[in-house]
Amino acid sequence: MTEGYAGWKALIDLALAEDIGSGDLTTLSTIPAGTMATGVMTAKSPGVISGLDAAAYALWRVDPCVEFTPKVQDGDSVAVGDVVAELSGPARSILTGERTALNLLQRLSGVATITAQFVAEIAGTGATIVDTRKTTPGLRELEKAAVRHGGGHNHRFGLSDGVLIKDNHLAAIGGADRVTKAIAAARLRAPHTVRVEVEVTTLAEVEEAAIAGADIIMFDNMSNEMMKEAGRIVAKRAITEASGGVRLETVRKIAETGVDLISVGALTHSAPSVDISLTFALGDN
Amino acid sequence: MTEGYAGWKALIDLALAEDIGSGDLTTLSTIPAGTMATGVMTAKSPGVISGLDAAAYALWRVDPCVEFTPKVQDGDSVAVGDVVAELSGPARSILTGERTALNLLQRLSGVATITAQFVAEIAGTGATIVDTRKTTPGLRELEKAAVRHGGGHNHRFGLSDGVLIKDNHLAAIGGADRVTKAIAAARLRAPHTVRVEVEVTTLAEVEEAAIAGADIIMFDNMSNEMMKEAGRIVAKRAITEASGGVRLETVRKIAETGVDLISVGALTHSAPSVDISLTFALGDN
Amino acid sequence: MTEGYAGWKALIDLALAEDIGSGDLTTLSTIPAGTMATGVMTAKSPGVISGLDAAAYALWRVDPCVEFTPKVQDGDSVAVGDVVAELSGPARSILTGERTALNLLQRLSGVATITAQFVAEIAGTGATIVDTRKTTPGLRELEKAAVRHGGGHNHRFGLSDGVLIKDNHLAAIGGADRVTKAIAAARLRAPHTVRVEVEVTTLAEVEEAAIAGADIIMFDNMSNEMMKEAGRIVAKRAITEASGGVRLETVRKIAETGVDLISVGALTHSAPSVDISLTFALGDN
Amino acid sequence: MTEGYAGWKALIDLALAEDIGSGDLTTLSTIPAGTMATGVMTAKSPGVISGLDAAAYALWRVDPCVEFTPKVQDGDSVAVGDVVAELSGPARSILTGERTALNLLQRLSGVATITAQFVAEIAGTGATIVDTRKTTPGLRELEKAAVRHGGGHNHRFGLSDGVLIKDNHLAAIGGADRVTKAIAAARLRAPHTVRVEVEVTTLAEVEEAAIAGADIIMFDNMSNEMMKEAGRIVAKRAITEASGGVRLETVRKIAETGVDLISVGALTHSAPSVDISLTFALGDN
Amino acid sequence: MTEGYAGWKALIDLALAEDIGSGDLTTLSTIPAGTMATGVMTAKSPGVISGLDAAAYALWRVDPCVEFTPKVQDGDSVAVGDVVAELSGPARSILTGERTALNLLQRLSGVATITAQFVAEIAGTGATIVDTRKTTPGLRELEKAAVRHGGGHNHRFGLSDGVLIKDNHLAAIGGADRVTKAIAAARLRAPHTVRVEVEVTTLAEVEEAAIAGADIIMFDNMSNEMMKEAGRIVAKRAITEASGGVRLETVRKIAETGVDLISVGALTHSAPSVDISLTFALGDN
Amino acid sequence: MTEGYAGWKALIDLALAEDIGSGDLTTLSTIPAGTMATGVMTAKSPGVISGLDAAAYALWRVDPCVEFTPKVQDGDSVAVGDVVAELSGPARSILTGERTALNLLQRLSGVATITAQFVAEIAGTGATIVDTRKTTPGLRELEKAAVRHGGGHNHRFGLSDGVLIKDNHLAAIGGADRVTKAIAAARLRAPHTVRVEVEVTTLAEVEEAAIAGADIIMFDNMSNEMMKEAGRIVAKRAITEASGGVRLETVRKIAETGVDLISVGALTHSAPSVDISLTFALGDN
Repeated sequence: MTEGYAGWKALIDLALAEDIGSGDLTTLSTIPAGTMATGVMTAKSPGVISGLDAAAYALWRVDPCVEFTPKVQDGDSVAVGDVVAELSGPARSILTGERTALNLLQRLSGVATITAQFVAEIAGTGATIVDTRKTTPGLRELEKAAVRHGGGHNHRFGLSDGVLIKDNHLAAIGGADRVTKAIAAARLRAPHTVRVEVEVTTLAEVEEAAIAGADIIMFDNMSNEMMKEAGRIVAKRAITEASGGVRLETVRKIAETGVDLISVGALTHSAPSVDISLTFALGDN
Repeated sequence: MTEGYAGWKALIDLALAEDIGSGDLTTLSTIPAGTMATGVMTAKSPGVISGLDAAAYALWRVDPCVEFTPKVQDGDSVAVGDVVAELSGPARSILTGERTALNLLQRLSGVATITAQFVAEIAGTGATIVDTRKTTPGLRELEKAAVRHGGGHNHRFGLSDGVLIKDNHLAAIGGADRVTKAIAAARLRAPHTVRVEVEVTTLAEVEEAAIAGADIIMFDNMSNEMMKEAGRIVAKRAITEASGGVRLETVRKIAETGVDLISVGALTHSAPSVDISLTFALGDN
Repeated sequence: MTEGYAGWKALIDLALAEDIGSGDLTTLSTIPAGTMATGVMTAKSPGVISGLDAAAYALWRVDPCVEFTPKVQDGDSVAVGDVVAELSGPARSILTGERTALNLLQRLSGVATITAQFVAEIAGTGATIVDTRKTTPGLRELEKAAVRHGGGHNHRFGLSDGVLIKDNHLAAIGGADRVTKAIAAARLRAPHTVRVEVEVTTLAEVEEAAIAGADIIMFDNMSNEMMKEAGRIVAKRAITEASGGVRLETVRKIAETGVDLISVGALTHSAPSVDISLTFALGDN
Repeated sequence: MTEGYAGWKALIDLALAEDIGSGDLTTLSTIPAGTMATGVMTAKSPGVISGLDAAAYALWRVDPCVEFTPKVQDGDSVAVGDVVAELSGPARSILTGERTALNLLQRLSGVATITAQFVAEIAGTGATIVDTRKTTPGLRELEKAAVRHGGGHNHRFGLSDGVLIKDNHLAAIGGADRVTKAIAAARLRAPHTVRVEVEVTTLAEVEEAAIAGADIIMFDNMSNEMMKEAGRIVAKRAITEASGGVRLETVRKIAETGVDLISVGALTHSAPSVDISLTFALGDN
Repeated sequence: MTEGYAGWKALIDLALAEDIGSGDLTTLSTIPAGTMATGVMTAKSPGVISGLDAAAYALWRVDPCVEFTPKVQDGDSVAVGDVVAELSGPARSILTGERTALNLLQRLSGVATITAQFVAEIAGTGATIVDTRKTTPGLRELEKAAVRHGGGHNHRFGLSDGVLIKDNHLAAIGGADRVTKAIAAARLRAPHTVRVEVEVTTLAEVEEAAIAGADIIMFDNMSNEMMKEAGRIVAKRAITEASGGVRLETVRKIAETGVDLISVGALTHSAPSVDISLTFALGDN
Repeated sequence: MTEGYAGWKALIDLALAEDIGSGDLTTLSTIPAGTMATGVMTAKSPGVISGLDAAAYALWRVDPCVEFTPKVQDGDSVAVGDVVAELSGPARSILTGERTALNLLQRLSGVATITAQFVAEIAGTGATIVDTRKTTPGLRELEKAAVRHGGGHNHRFGLSDGVLIKDNHLAAIGGADRVTKAIAAARLRAPHTVRVEVEVTTLAEVEEAAIAGADIIMFDNMSNEMMKEAGRIVAKRAITEASGGVRLETVRKIAETGVDLISVGALTHSAPSVDISLTFALGDN
């Protein structure tokens, strides 16, 4: 589900405005006002569904008279041929809103589906798949929800709800004890309600971060061997996170190093869409 | 280049708002105000670049003092290690805007890159690769520009700048001469400045559409053999377009049927991102 | 009818905001909350009605409890004394929204009315009256609809849904074959779904445009004699359009030259309002 | 000049968005990026200029690199052939912004021009021409400024900066002393910084309004004779205003009745545009 | 009540966006979707209520399914323990919207309460308490309504609905007759529907303002003795207003000088909140 | 400093729009365009300054030609008579923007000042003063910054960047182990980057929360004695926070109980403004 106050709705408004512009010339030409119709959204490729709220909102914005009735829930797996949702209402409105609703549903289901694949791959290890900020511009709320629907967990939403000290921040702090100083600086400024995470690349930094009281330590592009050793060093003093170029083929071995979290940019930056199509029929429901 | 008046800028504002929220806690904690820095954006995977304007605008919105200097142009191919752009300015602003700028550049370059692959695949045939409305919600202007940067051509922008009569419109019109009636209806209502395209599935419809004066006839999910025959029927009376599940492996055979245009939803709905990273250094340029 | 996604509604919001500001002092002072009323909108001058949707939307934005019931349809002719619409609802809301609703209805009906006059003037010729981009800033969707309600046809909506090569574009291209080059340049860049129109002033340009495959050729400020000759040159290879200072007194002769389209800026830039007034009565409907 | 904070700029943004949409296809096709040009805006019909700020803002929003140099001031009279303004800057930006800038300038100059005609007609009488709320939706700030540029005076801006008790408000109050009660109700609720005006139709109401302390008394659709008598009754106890169907042919006789103000809806609801055209040349200024 | 068209609603949208952001993590975690609940808003400190519309709108924007039923009216006094409003609806929505609704209600009731204290203090004198422009940025409409709910009267809403000539304006005009000239300049430019007020500091200026026909004369930081003398000079030729550092302890003596209006910035710039709390219970209403 | 992307700027735009409306009638009447002026903002009451960025932005939005030069920094203490900032630029723009700039500066300095008083009161104890969500609607970013300028620390910004389980959430979970279950539910849903805080009222709940791994435990309206005992129970397993009706007179005793944090709603819901005034002089800087 999508729960933010305004952002995702603003995105959907932009999407409708860019598609509909000054009016759907084809539909206005060929469909008389007042014609009623029904539609069925069906999966043409298998996947995990996400984006039902977004699709519903898009259709509602086009015309509150369109009824959108999901037949599955966000997070459900669908096979080819499964009905995802049924629609009924004014034929013009269904045809005008169809593309935007499907574009949202297909892309978000794509994110949920790839997430579910990663999650399945590490089943039985103690690790958790988390997302990143490599989301589609404007769609972060929707894509973060899709990751949850796929069984993943969310990393921080953005720059203001978590501290993640990266190499560039450490470089700016400088000095031999830069990890320690950076963590202290973050504690001083950030609300006490957010955790402090630091990205490290060496085992010495791992040790320093743990001593300095980092809440979360991110192992950046470390080998699996190195991550095992890093985990031993941390010794449960902090949450550990593996990051960097994680692929479906490599994720299980990473999980088996014992890290707590594995962050995967590909969940949102390169997920192929799930194919969902609308069949349409004139007449009332 | 991106030339629309307002849409793409509104999208970038949404993207920055969702990422930055009430402030970049980490950067504000660890980087003193007034610190200057430089950055280099480098390709980590090969591709065709698109989105330089979008990245520049994103950084400018974060802070007009950030200078963004592209070292390539939209449409240029880059190899691993090529420098895409250089940045200089306040360290805080570069770090705060980095992710949104990269997200835009990586995704749009992904669209340009896959487009270029399709274009290359059909080199020497007379066909042209065109995009669809299966774009990322909110990013249509940017993705349509990326298709051009990849060497493709744009289909209509949205529902108000072209007529495309589909099966559902024909079904609503009904009757044996529904193709003819639909084309006439569109001529009556739409500005004379837009062309009328009709999607057909049988050879009889092809013939009817050509006689009725369709400007463009879309062959929907026809076999290559059928498209060849359809092209003979049209006999240059209209522009012809192949559509439906076109893949990199199948596109050349389709082009060789003699169709004028091949529309490919995958250009925008499933393009993997190009990997571009920022290296960052303190100090003035 | 008004079918665009967002533009015309945004305009009406601006109009209400500028009129109502921080509240209707007079109505709030003199009308008790809860008072119900009815109203009747009556034509005080003859004309063709347009803007019923706009008026309805304006009143709905002020208060969804106001019922607005049109007694005619957009495009209907009304005589003095004809009832255009009936209203009922909270007295405060009717009085607060009245002026904006009437301003919209009167102006848009003015556009429909003058359009109908031009259309009547050329009855029986094969020509069609079309509008221009000389619309009231912010009201383009509404005024383009009003032109259709008056029996006219729309030219392109704006700069992004049609190509219209004018003298300044030709001057920038330059060279003896600038018409040919400009048409080719437009084909290369614009979606294939929009037509290419070129504005010409000499018969040589007419011939060049027809050979170069212009879809539409605009005769700019030509004499009627010259337009007849131009039409013979085009010989149905393109749609022809007369443009420039067309007036009600001159339009029939222009139509008789055999041009397909006559574009008339005055439809939208100088249409006098139709006079419509609201009579108001306390009490329920 | 235009001095409001946000309204008129929002209107111009809407106007540019509706015209430019996803980009000016013609200009982008035919004018190379980087081409510089100059332009001259020249009056093609005589009139009084208004809207220079609006035109300048529109061009600046398209491209801050366009220089717009007025050669006259708002309120100046121009003859056919007079130069109104000069432009220089990127050719693409001038051509893309031209239509919106001209649409604003032509319409607002139309309002200033008709206002000046009314003002000239009553020269030497003590009366003042004032506008009404019958303005173009969205353009009130700009049109109110145009009225001032034409030598007229502004009535209240909208519903929240003045009290104007009309027949419908009086009907809602009811009773023999409804004028008195309405004025008292307005004093009670409205800020003491706004004046209270009441619209009356009988001489008895005139007397009642004056006794009740109305600041301004509007004579609604009274004959000239009746207005003279009404003026005698008021005897300078209030400002007097004539209203209702005032035309250029009738305005002087109305002024000669001795009323202080004459409000004219036609200043803004039916003003024909002044014809202003742009000539364009490649090259730097 | 709050009657402006758009401003106060925009403020509430900002307030909800800043509080809810990308979602209420706690409520989403702990309250199942579909759980219903009721709530009671109770006064924890005595005061005069204002902001019921604002609170209702905030809750409605979070979820139109939340029913908000005021048990008192704006302007009513409440004692500790009095029920202000009852709520019922989805538990998640009530908890998510609670803080914003309460923040509005508490602050606006604070303004109404302090206003009522000032009003009570001057009971029986002929003076009226009015507000100033020292309102909380963004909340002017709501706070001006709160002043009315507390029994005060509103000064001008802002810079465009009244003329108030201050020392800085007089200084810019200059000359011995600067008060006279400033009043004349304002009459020339401002709509005749707004009154002209001038702020004066000496008795000579008082006399000049009265002669020049000021509608309202503001005595700026004068002693009570001086105001009495100033009132004698004005002799009912204008409305008189006392201004400057008025406190609850000093206001009665000021009122007893005979001034018509006393403007008090503290009504809105320093009003302590009224304490109102929400008790919450699961289950249907 | 204020670092959020968009919220605080949107608030300032609302504030300027509400104050300036369709134009500053007084200034436009009395100050000729082109007049230059300078101004000095001076403290009239002692306090801690906050809001310099906000004031600067407000003036810049009115007119980028106004130069605003702070003479102190946010967080500095000022005495009566201290210069806070100097301005120079167009006289009209300074006078038009003055009130909004001062309203921001005075209120935010009020927040910083009261915060500094609370901070001073607990000097030498180990406790930290933190704010709450009881901020002025729309001003949260600015007020949270003001709290930092006063030496306080921020609690979570809003509902999406921290988990704070309150009595109502616990009631909805229900059961003897509701504290434990609520914490687990939050861990499951919320990003791992935010901490989980729980509000408790009994010592048994304190113990349960500590065992269940709450990151922060809020003692809600406990007596000081009870908080001491609660602190002993927690025994550094979690951060402890005192909450509920904290006043300047009671805060030190609370701090001496050994709690880590003391949250004070009064910092933002009832802070009196600091008095800052603008003196203005014609002429250049």
